[in-house]
Amino acid sequence: MTTQWDSLLSNSGRNLRGSAVRELFKLMRPGMISFGGGMPAPETFPCEAIERVCSKVLREQGTVALQYGQTAGYIPLRDHLAEVTMAELGLHARRENVLVITGGLQADDLLPKVLVDPGDPVVVEDPTFLGALASFAPYQPRYITIPVDGEGMRVDLLAEALKKENPKFIYTIPNFHNPAGCTMSLERRQKLVALADRYGVPLLEDDPYHQLRFSGEPQPALVSLDQERLDRPAEDEAYTAGNVIYTGSFSKILSPGIRLGWVCGPTPIIEKLERAKQGVDLHTSLFIQMIAYELCQEGFFPAHIERIRELYRRRRDLMMDLIGEHFPPEATFTVPDGGLFLWVTLPPGCDTQAMMLDAIEAGVAFVPGSSFYATGGGENTMRLNFSNANEEQMPRGIALLGEVLKKHIG
Amino acid sequence: MTTQWDSLLSNSGRNLRGSAVRELFKLMRPGMISFGGGMPAPETFPCEAIERVCSKVLREQGTVALQYGQTAGYIPLRDHLAEVTMAELGLHARRENVLVITGGLQADDLLPKVLVDPGDPVVVEDPTFLGALASFAPYQPRYITIPVDGEGMRVDLLAEALKKENPKFIYTIPNFHNPAGCTMSLERRQKLVALADRYGVPLLEDDPYHQLRFSGEPQPALVSLDQERLDRPAEDEAYTAGNVIYTGSFSKILSPGIRLGWVCGPTPIIEKLERAKQGVDLHTSLFIQMIAYELCQEGFFPAHIERIRELYRRRRDLMMDLIGEHFPPEATFTVPDGGLFLWVTLPPGCDTQAMMLDAIEAGVAFVPGSSFYATGGGENTMRLNFSNANEEQMPRGIALLGEVLKKHIG
Repeated sequence: MTTQWDSLLSNSGRNLRGSAVRELFKLMRPGMISFGGGMPAPETFPCEAIERVCSKVLREQGTVALQYGQTAGYIPLRDHLAEVTMAELGLHARRENVLVITGGLQADDLLPKVLVDPGDPVVVEDPTFLGALASFAPYQPRYITIPVDGEGMRVDLLAEALKKENPKFIYTIPNFHNPAGCTMSLERRQKLVALADRYGVPLLEDDPYHQLRFSGEPQPALVSLDQERLDRPAEDEAYTAGNVIYTGSFSKILSPGIRLGWVCGPTPIIEKLERAKQGVDLHTSLFIQMIAYELCQEGFFPAHIERIRELYRRRRDLMMDLIGEHFPPEATFTVPDGGLFLWVTLPPGCDTQAMMLDAIEAGVAFVPGSSFYATGGGENTMRLNFSNANEEQMPRGIALLGEVLKKHIG
Repeated sequence: MTTQWDSLLSNSGRNLRGSAVRELFKLMRPGMISFGGGMPAPETFPCEAIERVCSKVLREQGTVALQYGQTAGYIPLRDHLAEVTMAELGLHARRENVLVITGGLQADDLLPKVLVDPGDPVVVEDPTFLGALASFAPYQPRYITIPVDGEGMRVDLLAEALKKENPKFIYTIPNFHNPAGCTMSLERRQKLVALADRYGVPLLEDDPYHQLRFSGEPQPALVSLDQERLDRPAEDEAYTAGNVIYTGSFSKILSPGIRLGWVCGPTPIIEKLERAKQGVDLHTSLFIQMIAYELCQEGFFPAHIERIRELYRRRRDLMMDLIGEHFPPEATFTVPDGGLFLWVTLPPGCDTQAMMLDAIEAGVAFVPGSSFYATGGGENTMRLNFSNANEEQMPRGIALLGEVLKKHIG
């Protein structure tokens, strides 16, 4: 008797949620123009710098890089992330506060693994990152959705929800929101941290884009605001208290294909996440960690990030101009201060899922907005990525997409 | 109010099981001799070959290697694993049967994720790989343990268990068992596959060491025996039926630090595992996959594996000689036909956990056997790795360990 796999599935197995972006990925044909995934511009990938540090790592420390490593991560990289990267965000952290992970998304698997039982309430923004929803799904949370507007999460509505519910955590993307493009205002950040404090609720701060700001003033990280309300930890010690688990990523500033990110938080939860990671993938590729560390250490990033920022700023501006030119006037969009995405809203009754099929037929891809809503809605919205298509592809792609939109709206 | 993490933990979070090897890893001091982890000999790491293919990949396909990739894996690598690696094991497979994963261990997280609800029965060998127990633990299986002897799993006892229980899967390490060192006989393999067929139970075949055979005749893989009982799939098609999920790894033939492995199985379960992997780490580092593929493609592995095999064979023989010389005569051990481990049994009443603390004090590490028992037992056993310590360290280490054993037994 051959195994009947469907009849053996666990509740988690039945609750797996496919990602619209991943499914889109499979439909992509050569020559198509993609505004779909959150893919960096390939011309920003520093192939030569990576080749150089690969050789350095393999020649000088090859037998370390290729051997098993500690689950928590490569110590020099953890030190750098704690004492330089997180310090730049205003946080006092030590290596014990940092867990290196296999891409920022891994945090969205590890945290519910240690905190969420089926049916437990979890707060997500409406809309929110669909990859996080795919990670959370097997843990079967019950979603409490809080809408976002131009200033980020509607923290006023969160207060109401926290009075009634006791969520396991609140998931938020404060900078250059994916998909909505908005950035949380300082006032809301302060209120959010205060609310988490009042109710003792963890905040999962997903921050993969913060280096990619084009305009406006940088806002403090939630993790740093949270620390300000506590006694300052001793200079050489890791911090142990706080509500925020911060997730950072090398995907948008170095390469997504290498799969490298980190979480930073109070030691009690970092230790739990580390233990969960042991059983998931033992540790993140040590070779990849050492490549990234060498680049950190030699001061590669500031100038490199500046180049990426300039490029994406130009592409954001170009996309906004092109939308003005080609989209029907009923289409409105956010003006993001950074990141990778424009969020387009069409009149009620529009169905961007149907438009997507026509768009793919025409040779251009985007992600229908409904994929970003945990509990439904958003059928008249769409996410457009402006980092991946180049200056030659983008005008063609937006013109093609404009035709599709006009056909559906007209 | 600062989050009280312990009070928020999920059932999974409370069930996390630390790995004795990982904890040991933290106690290791420079200069210590380790028979602990399953670490390859660092002198086998092909740093120059990897440096060469890193450069090739980055120069010729850098913008592919550093970009997001498909969850299922890099297509040329999947094709190679299906049509060459698995074909060498006698299996007909196509790329749709293969999912590339972030180290072989990831299979031990993904499979229970899609199959196991808390309390579901899962069959494991007694003893078994402690890393798998750590991966399974958050899914809270109820273990049915089947002892191993010199011919592998006691399949006669499994038949009894399957009459009473309906396990979600059976986890087995047929070649050069970790930790027990034994290899499953052909007769038992045939009976095991027939039993899985009779009861429609999945088999998880963990096979990270099969290339490392020193003596005896290679045995057919369970996955291949399983396919023999089915209609042959069409030449150019993936197979869809069968009970076996096979896990392979590059850790012992290339490098564990890069974290690269694969699963091969019938398409219905591979598709489920792929979807589960989406939410866990999106995909395995594409750069790492392309490095491994280049090495596969240029025919690097056969001669490289032969060198590893020769080295480990000599070290196995040396360790057996040294044990004869230095251990008390009450200590007995398996003679493994391959792999990385000797399994030592001491008289009943001995406590290898207590011995380990003395051994670490003396500067030598091993893993107490009790860590490998899902439901307790094995206090008088220990696992010794013979691949990592070199010809200069091993005599010192075994002599030191012999002293500790004599102190405790004498």
